[in-house]
Amino acid sequence: MSAFAPLANDRFLRACWRQATDTTPVWLMRQAGRYLSEYRATRARAGSFMGLATNVDYATEVTLQPVERYPLDAAILFSDILTVPDAMGLGLSFAEGEGPRFASVVRDEAAVARLAVPDMDRLRYVFDAVTSIRRALNGRVPLIGFSGSPWTLACYMVEGGGTQDYRHVKTLMYARPDLMHRILVVNAAAVAAYLNAQIAAGAQAVMLFDSWGGVLADGAFQAFSLAYTRQVLAQLRRNAPDGTPVPRIVFTKGGGLWLDDMRTLDCEVLGLDWTVNLGRARALVGGGASGPGKALQGNIDPNVLFAPPEVIDAQVRAVLESFGPPHTDPATRGATHIFNLGHGISQHTPPEHVSVLVEAVHRHGRRLRGAAL
Amino acid sequence: MSAFAPLANDRFLRACWRQATDTTPVWLMRQAGRYLSEYRATRARAGSFMGLATNVDYATEVTLQPVERYPLDAAILFSDILTVPDAMGLGLSFAEGEGPRFASVVRDEAAVARLAVPDMDRLRYVFDAVTSIRRALNGRVPLIGFSGSPWTLACYMVEGGGTQDYRHVKTLMYARPDLMHRILVVNAAAVAAYLNAQIAAGAQAVMLFDSWGGVLADGAFQAFSLAYTRQVLAQLRRNAPDGTPVPRIVFTKGGGLWLDDMRTLDCEVLGLDWTVNLGRARALVGGGASGPGKALQGNIDPNVLFAPPEVIDAQVRAVLESFGPPHTDPATRGATHIFNLGHGISQHTPPEHVSVLVEAVHRHGRRLRGAAL
Repeated sequence: MSAFAPLANDRFLRACWRQATDTTPVWLMRQAGRYLSEYRATRARAGSFMGLATNVDYATEVTLQPVERYPLDAAILFSDILTVPDAMGLGLSFAEGEGPRFASVVRDEAAVARLAVPDMDRLRYVFDAVTSIRRALNGRVPLIGFSGSPWTLACYMVEGGGTQDYRHVKTLMYARPDLMHRILVVNAAAVAAYLNAQIAAGAQAVMLFDSWGGVLADGAFQAFSLAYTRQVLAQLRRNAPDGTPVPRIVFTKGGGLWLDDMRTLDCEVLGLDWTVNLGRARALVGGGASGPGKALQGNIDPNVLFAPPEVIDAQVRAVLESFGPPHTDPATRGATHIFNLGHGISQHTPPEHVSVLVEAVHRHGRRLRGAAL
Repeated sequence: MSAFAPLANDRFLRACWRQATDTTPVWLMRQAGRYLSEYRATRARAGSFMGLATNVDYATEVTLQPVERYPLDAAILFSDILTVPDAMGLGLSFAEGEGPRFASVVRDEAAVARLAVPDMDRLRYVFDAVTSIRRALNGRVPLIGFSGSPWTLACYMVEGGGTQDYRHVKTLMYARPDLMHRILVVNAAAVAAYLNAQIAAGAQAVMLFDSWGGVLADGAFQAFSLAYTRQVLAQLRRNAPDGTPVPRIVFTKGGGLWLDDMRTLDCEVLGLDWTVNLGRARALVGGGASGPGKALQGNIDPNVLFAPPEVIDAQVRAVLESFGPPHTDPATRGATHIFNLGHGISQHTPPEHVSVLVEAVHRHGRRLRGAAL
């Protein structure tokens, strides 16, 4: 028995489970963000990014803003992927216009030895936000929880912030793979605990952002990113407190070359960036009416949103058509597509162009199903 | 009849033509550069990066520095990929520690209309450097000429410098594909003329750097990058002034997903970054004893050079072995491998580690051929 309102729009969750839907569901990575004036207003009241992310009311408010504005089919928790290493005591801050920065970096044996799975009470503000958002959504659309992948978190923990060349983290990986594996073991356990607590708090799906998996060499990706994504997935609880199964999404930016490896992940959905042809990905991992295929999520280039409405419409259509004929048989499972960007939305995006995109996905999605029937 | 000395080490050129060699040839992208103290000394005398690149004596000096220090199998012209748009009148400069910057950007109809293939006399300093370097090499190893690809040059011309999100160039591409195609037509003609003049001046192989092809969406890559690489290749002269055929290398960073498209390019060698499995690439485009296969160039992660010597050795070996058994039959053509990094060498690289890498390539390359015979 659930403490939350029943779900009015289950299009996203159905597509996660490879069930037919009336049209293609759509949500956008980083849909709550700076491109929205209402977000900037809340952010100004909060004073800082962490002030926003750690306050349950603000986090709830900004998570709902895009859902109020657009007919999106899912909401995603407003938070940052670096909350976990912050809870490990590395001291996260965001300097204006500079991106994240950690006070401590993890580059030597002593720093690695100090690492431990953080007490989840230090992340209570996230789980409280999940429950608050779920209540505020009131069943309109499902709520997605998320975390950075073990490898992606390690990149920030070793580099101390963003990087262009991944020099420190890769040096550690090549020179001291034992230390890197130790970091990743801790990260995997921490990420699993973090996602399990989000599920317990009300998240209806969870997503792992392996934002930097694609910077790894072939071979290193499998050993240092994928293996720990697998560890996280193995430790995840399968069901919400009310017994509803919780689908799991894995997104490796730049991971298109490794779809064949990712096919064996124990998850329901694979996220794809814009370099991947959806039709080819569907043939490789989409599965048939039975068997363990994956739903696919993605993958329009966010820069399409800077083009005029008629171009956005045409590009949306091209992405939907690249996936191929939608699965329409309610009696079987089949290849399904959740429309999304191939990466987070740009802060410079004109908000009215997002309306055009969302409307185009639903309209073309319906039309393609009509044609397929 | 050639005005230049005969070639003593033809390992690189033989491998380009898919002919057997005694060991695997090796050179490194950006091998003349800041990681070498002798380069920094010349750079200091030159005063600025462009002062270095536009002076024939300095360009000759720094091109030869890595060849003096390491037993490399090829030299590559020291220059910058942005010389061509600079010659178009866009005003290139390099602010210390900031990367390239153009005084004018190409973002509207008027700026695009002004673009034209530059008078190659404005790039005379490059061709003079090619001849000077070829003479100074005195037949030790072959000299590679190069250019940025039409798409990669367009990225800089539209953005005005480096970028993280390619927002301006992609906005133009999606919103005004007509203007983007016009830029690319001009760039393709300019790049072809530029490379042809390098061949006339003494370049023994030429390479197209499609450094930013990998940021494009599937579909857009084929239309806006690959199509214009093809245009360049179609306009290239096939032979040096003495009649020797000149092999052509195409390197698309992040292009591993599109190897099947690149298979049909009219070039001899495909460069690969470290995300690509060489064995899989060989199976896809390496070709057999006859037929139009490509030689492969790459692809170790430059960050391996920060690891200790024994790790470098092991990683070199792993890359060579991922390619598979070397082609050893002198009577036929077959799949060949030119060892290189998957991207330019980092300025922070310890120079003695480059010795370890080059020595390891040659030693393991010989050993693998012994085993294969």
